[in-house]
Amino acid sequence: MTEHIVSAFENELKSLAQRVAEMGGLTEKQIVGAIDALVRGDNELAQTVREADPAIDAMQRDIEETGVLVIAKRQPMAIDLREIVGALRIASDLERIADLAKNIAKRVIVINGTLPAPKVTGGFEAMSKLALERVKEVLDAYAQRDVAAAMDVWKADGDIDALYNSLFRELLTYMLEDPRNIGACTHLLFCAKNLERIGDHATNIAETVHYMVKGVALSDERPKLDTTSIITAGT
Amino acid sequence: MTEHIVSAFENELKSLAQRVAEMGGLTEKQIVGAIDALVRGDNELAQTVREADPAIDAMQRDIEETGVLVIAKRQPMAIDLREIVGALRIASDLERIADLAKNIAKRVIVINGTLPAPKVTGGFEAMSKLALERVKEVLDAYAQRDVAAAMDVWKADGDIDALYNSLFRELLTYMLEDPRNIGACTHLLFCAKNLERIGDHATNIAETVHYMVKGVALSDERPKLDTTSIITAGT
Repeated sequence: MTEHIVSAFENELKSLAQRVAEMGGLTEKQIVGAIDALVRGDNELAQTVREADPAIDAMQRDIEETGVLVIAKRQPMAIDLREIVGALRIASDLERIADLAKNIAKRVIVINGTLPAPKVTGGFEAMSKLALERVKEVLDAYAQRDVAAAMDVWKADGDIDALYNSLFRELLTYMLEDPRNIGACTHLLFCAKNLERIGDHATNIAETVHYMVKGVALSDERPKLDTTSIITAGT
Repeated sequence: MTEHIVSAFENELKSLAQRVAEMGGLTEKQIVGAIDALVRGDNELAQTVREADPAIDAMQRDIEETGVLVIAKRQPMAIDLREIVGALRIASDLERIADLAKNIAKRVIVINGTLPAPKVTGGFEAMSKLALERVKEVLDAYAQRDVAAAMDVWKADGDIDALYNSLFRELLTYMLEDPRNIGACTHLLFCAKNLERIGDHATNIAETVHYMVKGVALSDERPKLDTTSIITAGT
């Protein structure tokens, strides 16, 4: 490519990465909002989170369209091609993280309507804090193209799963204790599951950063420590 | 492009579509297997479904890599570009559908270990039949590039949601009735949620078929009739 085209291309790559970073920031904001709304029982905040979701979907579509056009126009190879593919994959994971945050917000409004008031415990706050941290860390790793930092996030996936296991068991005990808790606790179970899946998507993004920088996919199996699918409470 | 290149390109597009169709077939098989395992309490079948999942993940990655390389190599425009982007999006939705089927299979083995035996009712069979039909119909619509058929699937999203609502309420009543049901019913709730999300992904694929053929995204909001997030049982 001519020098002129090279710098135009570099600007396109920078712009794409910038849009992903922007989308990441909005997604973090949604997670914070959803959890805040859950813990404080704030319906208004929950509604704000719900209404902010379509804009994030639009960003993902925009990044996808732009990325595809750049590939068609510039015919990038090797690391440049991986930059663009990486941006597309990360935007896709961010869109799903934001969707999970919105789903938590949707349930908040219901949970607030139930009696007895559900126990949105320290377990929830701990788990959501962890999930948010992972998303922030992996987006920083992406911004810095820092594989080591991305791998720290990847390895830590087990932490969120462990908290999810505890939270799941805790919620089961409330349901067993008093059937009137079942309604609210079921919603909280889904919220906990959503947080665990946010952690999974952060791990996906870590794998993408690895692929972008190293040029190969991670060969090891992801450390999966979610054992709730084998919990048989009540038997 | 020269005639030679045009037909080489056409072959690449055909090959990509073929791979998506193949992935679709395997995904349908996973849904059938997971539901069969659930309804019959068949742990061996559930394990087979779990072990078949990595191959489907690999197909999605392969389709993504191939699609991106074709875009970079052939610089397609308009409908050809949408063909490739469509294949990438559909492969992504299929990977998630297969993942949901695998997650159902994971819980089967647990559910089978619980007493009293959970009620895997007609509600479940009806919902899974619907979900499978939608996936088959939309993959046929994709194979035929039939927008009308895709739109039939898109409009029918409400049917699966309605069944999910009923199933959700039904499971809640079992839990309220007898706390010993809570463990197994919680797993069944997650299975039902997974089926509902399979339906959502079928709807996504329908939107992609529309985009591929018409060149524009669907402008209407998807008909979302899942009201379980507002059910307040037990209050």
